[in-house]
Amino acid sequence: MDIAERSLALHEEKAGKLSVESKVAINSRDDLSLAYTPGVAEPCKKIAEDVEEAYRYTAKGNLVGVITDGTAVLGLGDIGPEAAMPVMEGKAILFKEFAGVDAFPICLATKETDEIVQTIVNLAPTFGGINLEDISSPRCFEIEKQLDEKLDIPVFHDDQHGTAIVVSAGILNSLKLVNKQLDEIKVVLNGPGAAGTAIVKMLLELNVKDVVVCDEHGILYEGRPVPLFDHKLELAKITNKEGLTGDLSQALVGADVFVGVSIGGIVTEAMVQSMNRDAIVFAMANPVPEIMYHEAKQAGARVVGTGRSDFPNQINNVLAFPGIFKGALAVRATTINAEMKFAAAQAIADMIPADELTEENVIPEALNKEVAKQVAHYVAQAAIETGVAKRIEGEI
Amino acid sequence: MDIAERSLALHEEKAGKLSVESKVAINSRDDLSLAYTPGVAEPCKKIAEDVEEAYRYTAKGNLVGVITDGTAVLGLGDIGPEAAMPVMEGKAILFKEFAGVDAFPICLATKETDEIVQTIVNLAPTFGGINLEDISSPRCFEIEKQLDEKLDIPVFHDDQHGTAIVVSAGILNSLKLVNKQLDEIKVVLNGPGAAGTAIVKMLLELNVKDVVVCDEHGILYEGRPVPLFDHKLELAKITNKEGLTGDLSQALVGADVFVGVSIGGIVTEAMVQSMNRDAIVFAMANPVPEIMYHEAKQAGARVVGTGRSDFPNQINNVLAFPGIFKGALAVRATTINAEMKFAAAQAIADMIPADELTEENVIPEALNKEVAKQVAHYVAQAAIETGVAKRIEGEI
Repeated sequence: MDIAERSLALHEEKAGKLSVESKVAINSRDDLSLAYTPGVAEPCKKIAEDVEEAYRYTAKGNLVGVITDGTAVLGLGDIGPEAAMPVMEGKAILFKEFAGVDAFPICLATKETDEIVQTIVNLAPTFGGINLEDISSPRCFEIEKQLDEKLDIPVFHDDQHGTAIVVSAGILNSLKLVNKQLDEIKVVLNGPGAAGTAIVKMLLELNVKDVVVCDEHGILYEGRPVPLFDHKLELAKITNKEGLTGDLSQALVGADVFVGVSIGGIVTEAMVQSMNRDAIVFAMANPVPEIMYHEAKQAGARVVGTGRSDFPNQINNVLAFPGIFKGALAVRATTINAEMKFAAAQAIADMIPADELTEENVIPEALNKEVAKQVAHYVAQAAIETGVAKRIEGEI
Repeated sequence: MDIAERSLALHEEKAGKLSVESKVAINSRDDLSLAYTPGVAEPCKKIAEDVEEAYRYTAKGNLVGVITDGTAVLGLGDIGPEAAMPVMEGKAILFKEFAGVDAFPICLATKETDEIVQTIVNLAPTFGGINLEDISSPRCFEIEKQLDEKLDIPVFHDDQHGTAIVVSAGILNSLKLVNKQLDEIKVVLNGPGAAGTAIVKMLLELNVKDVVVCDEHGILYEGRPVPLFDHKLELAKITNKEGLTGDLSQALVGADVFVGVSIGGIVTEAMVQSMNRDAIVFAMANPVPEIMYHEAKQAGARVVGTGRSDFPNQINNVLAFPGIFKGALAVRATTINAEMKFAAAQAIADMIPADELTEENVIPEALNKEVAKQVAHYVAQAAIETGVAKRIEGEI
């Protein structure tokens, strides 16, 4: 059987991938009276006196809601909340398997920005953190922004920031190999959706000075004949300092780094050849990258990463989100700020020691479960240093 | 240590009582590609084509949301959503331990009826059923009614119907002992809140002809000087066929059954003595019943039940809700109708064979995990017979 058939069989055999289990056996009256009535009244009363005690007596402190509206699921688009459930269950079990974090999928039957925000605010008391997932752009920006303002628990749209963090880690390590600095490189990004927008913003925050963004109509700039709205207009204002016009091939001339979060096969070998020496290519369209690994290498790219596990340097969000929430929850961070995201990228980059850093090894293996531990540690430290941690003691 | 201290220690040691576990190990690239990308796209596509396939490929079909707004938690009242979490976690683990049903607690940060309804409608795609819990009266009636209309999955407010079902089972068995029929008894109920109202309605549906309801101002009747509103006015219209007035003691004269869901200690031995021969008393105030077990027996009551596990005939909702959802989910019932509730009561009553039925044994033991199986079986059959089951094949 191929992967598709085997995956279907697996999902049907298990009837989904997650279960809710009791940490307490209920076999006697005493068990029942401790876990339920009358004993359960005691932790209730403690929390009623001080709501922070929920972290002590309930599952909240290690519990993440994985929440979607089903509008941007994998490459499948707007397939609805029920059809998004297999992905959300998958995400939830990765939280557990990689970081020991309990996570539960919530698939929402609304696409209205304000209603999504209100629904998540209403169900937030259960959770220690909210991982937004597969919500289409540009609504995802507003939803995350509003939730981060309204809630005192961490909110993180993984499609944006998870991808940005892992790509940044890959760029940090790649630059060591080619002896270039962040503030002297030119980066061209194709595909300013949720992930692309977050990558651009993170690179700018990391002190990259020259970023050029392209969509299907070419380079983003103010006054373009095909007009720009909302987040693309914002991106045009903060990027393209040379005022370039034209298409992707024109953007790429002399570029040090290409980042693709767009469509398979749109980058040619000639485009890679037009880039600066020691070109770095992260072509993450799935399942077919913007340019195939071997073509990019043949065209002279020094480092090539993709979203695929069958080539070197896989960009996989599982390197980021489990450890980020583990770290944020450990110190009860009230948000996931820019410094915590940088720390996560640095933690991932630092997983590869100097003597193991090669063109084929700028990103750690997706299955390396040590990554989440290091990410959690760095993220927790960053939360403490930036004053967003409610707990600064204990094991991280 | 006493129960309170031991319960606190248990809750703190485990940091809550439930965990979310993966049914699939993720240790290889192949594991990841089946449970997550790219394989997970297949079940997503199947569900996008036919939303019913969610029952085949996801956890939905065995997953119940245990949802509260924290307004009527145990005897503690409106303690808020965070403080309700220990009870909701407790409920969730009872679903698993007694019926193998996955259940997850959602504690809502709103008390607005319409907003609660909309929030639950929005998050329903994840779940195969919704168990409402500890929502105060009278809002609970409207919330359940609206949700039952809007959703095609079972919705069940356990505080109402769970209690009504177990009390009804106890009355069914008690009447066998005293040789009385449902349509010839007089029942007096004290405490027309969520549970009391559901008990009255269920008894009327079971063909009890004479029910008298009392609140803290006495017997309910239209035109009472202390006026009646909303559900109490509705109860006054459908009960008290003799047009009685006065207080609880006057109501109880000649009654066959007393049902208390009110306040400890308000029924005296003299009141029990004023009841009909072979009086049946279910005094369920917690932790102190309306009249203590031994006092009621001493005053001549033939059968006495309470909410406590240290006396015979404990009325415990755990006898009902795990099996009810197990049965409803097994046949994908779209609702939990009156016939399914009667079937659940009959299933609980039938757990006690004729030769074991005694005054001290009209209700099965709360810890008897065979009860849920029989309840599930009866409930599933009733769903099929009344045409609300979407699946009528397979193992129940």
